[in-house]
Amino acid sequence: MGHKVDVGAIAEPFRAETQEMVKKLPSSVTPLMVGFLASDDPASRKYAQWTGSSCEKDGIKFEIRECKPFELERKLSEANDDVTVHGIMVYYPCFGFVPSFYGGNMDDHLRDSVRVEKDVEGLCFTYRHNLYRDVRFLPTLSGEPCDKKCLLPCTPLAIVKILESLNVYDENLEVGNRLKERVVTVINRSEIVGRPLSAMLANDGADVFSVDIDSIYLMRRGEMLPTELTVEEACKRSNVIVLGVPTKNYKLPVEWVQAGTIVVNVSHYKNVDEESLLKIPDVQYVPGPGKVTVAMLERNLIRLINNFHLPDSNVEVIQVGGRVVPKDS
Amino acid sequence: MGHKVDVGAIAEPFRAETQEMVKKLPSSVTPLMVGFLASDDPASRKYAQWTGSSCEKDGIKFEIRECKPFELERKLSEANDDVTVHGIMVYYPCFGFVPSFYGGNMDDHLRDSVRVEKDVEGLCFTYRHNLYRDVRFLPTLSGEPCDKKCLLPCTPLAIVKILESLNVYDENLEVGNRLKERVVTVINRSEIVGRPLSAMLANDGADVFSVDIDSIYLMRRGEMLPTELTVEEACKRSNVIVLGVPTKNYKLPVEWVQAGTIVVNVSHYKNVDEESLLKIPDVQYVPGPGKVTVAMLERNLIRLINNFHLPDSNVEVIQVGGRVVPKDS
Repeated sequence: MGHKVDVGAIAEPFRAETQEMVKKLPSSVTPLMVGFLASDDPASRKYAQWTGSSCEKDGIKFEIRECKPFELERKLSEANDDVTVHGIMVYYPCFGFVPSFYGGNMDDHLRDSVRVEKDVEGLCFTYRHNLYRDVRFLPTLSGEPCDKKCLLPCTPLAIVKILESLNVYDENLEVGNRLKERVVTVINRSEIVGRPLSAMLANDGADVFSVDIDSIYLMRRGEMLPTELTVEEACKRSNVIVLGVPTKNYKLPVEWVQAGTIVVNVSHYKNVDEESLLKIPDVQYVPGPGKVTVAMLERNLIRLINNFHLPDSNVEVIQVGGRVVPKDS
Repeated sequence: MGHKVDVGAIAEPFRAETQEMVKKLPSSVTPLMVGFLASDDPASRKYAQWTGSSCEKDGIKFEIRECKPFELERKLSEANDDVTVHGIMVYYPCFGFVPSFYGGNMDDHLRDSVRVEKDVEGLCFTYRHNLYRDVRFLPTLSGEPCDKKCLLPCTPLAIVKILESLNVYDENLEVGNRLKERVVTVINRSEIVGRPLSAMLANDGADVFSVDIDSIYLMRRGEMLPTELTVEEACKRSNVIVLGVPTKNYKLPVEWVQAGTIVVNVSHYKNVDEESLLKIPDVQYVPGPGKVTVAMLERNLIRLINNFHLPDSNVEVIQVGGRVVPKDS
């Protein structure tokens, strides 16, 4: 029989590490994460409160700032400029699940408006762009990497940490190749969950089938390749299946799941019938990565502080709005 | 009775100006615009061919590069790095109208991946971010504006030029205030048409009602404000109504249109019944800004060349991937 994974237990050591890191910060630095809540969605509010209580236990101040969607851009800009704020997150959707009228909506623009130095969710264009090219350290003006590690998006990072703890990664192999011969299917190709996750797993050597409403691709290292496989065939070959379909109606057919598969549900909805799934031998089911995601948010905040917000840190990141510089600099 | 506006006639003087500008370029510079076609959409192909023949007449080389959607990111990156390419455009959608699964799709990421120096459509994050703050010149490393004017998105820019030619702008007022007391309703709030257009009109002093599926806001200067008005009331107060609803089914109720209103259809579909509309006295109807949009693409290309691609231009713009710099620089 299959079993459910205890995600809280996976989060614990990361949170303990965060607590240690907080203690090592200079006394002048009080870690402050700000969460903008601009919708009436009760799930967002609950998640924000839950993040707050986790942060508080771990020595991080978490402030929920409520506003109307139309106020968000200004409030975000103020938080970008406020030196006491170390990390900013936004509870999306703020402007609703508006379909891309010929491309892009305000939520996507807002996501890119969070400064690189404060983007605790790791979702702004700069971090995604670097992730998709497997660039692990931010470049300096000359283009050389510096010692500031790029942040990774917290939900995909949480899934990676869960898979590490379930021994999907082979620690005998070198970093960057530890998912060699592993096959993963990720059903979601958004820029905030599915695609960054697929890129991270592919950067570590896995073959990743990336599935969206109307297409399936094979991600291998930095490459996106066509595949003749159906979603069913991809699932049947997979060691890991990640479900992120944002609708009530989608359910993964459990006959596509082989014995021993790890199934991770990252959707707000249940994308699989749990009872039937757990009847499959040796299946490991992760109903939601939430607790590890919050642990990764905290971890990302500490990284931001150490990268950019210590009293002797005297750097900024050029991204928002662009800067014109001499070509040889 | 109303009448249809001859958009081709509005485009002509801009194209003549482009031809003059091309002649003034050093002989070593052959203006080259590249258009990536990664879908089977016949409308995209037709638009690309049409852009090509317009460019050719005006002294600009236009190259259609066809590829599969999954190849686009790599091809785009190559064109970003190719010094012979001065402008890049992409015929969206490439990955289909996939709804934002919890936010963002690959088309949005691709749009931001075009380098600022080659973004002839003016749609990357940097240009939008500056537009929304009414920042008209790119900043240098120190944050001061330099002499490189920011590009404006070509479709919204085309609509502005059409409205200028229809005397909606009061040339007796100072630049930045020439739409004083004008009221506009824009039915579309995407990041590629509706919101940039609303921002441009509001930056010039208009009151703009910005309408999307589930909301209506008043844009005034850089501010987004709530309003009690319905879409019907907004339309009835408007001097200009812009229609950009990407569905066959949407039709603007013609009884919302007052005598003398300018109605611009920017959707690929007809968002209004033309025959009924043209029965309203003094209505001016623009069935599509396409010809002026192409003229603006050409104009943007010349601006990119003069900003960044002349033999003695020795600057680049930091945007893609971010750069870490000392804070005081």
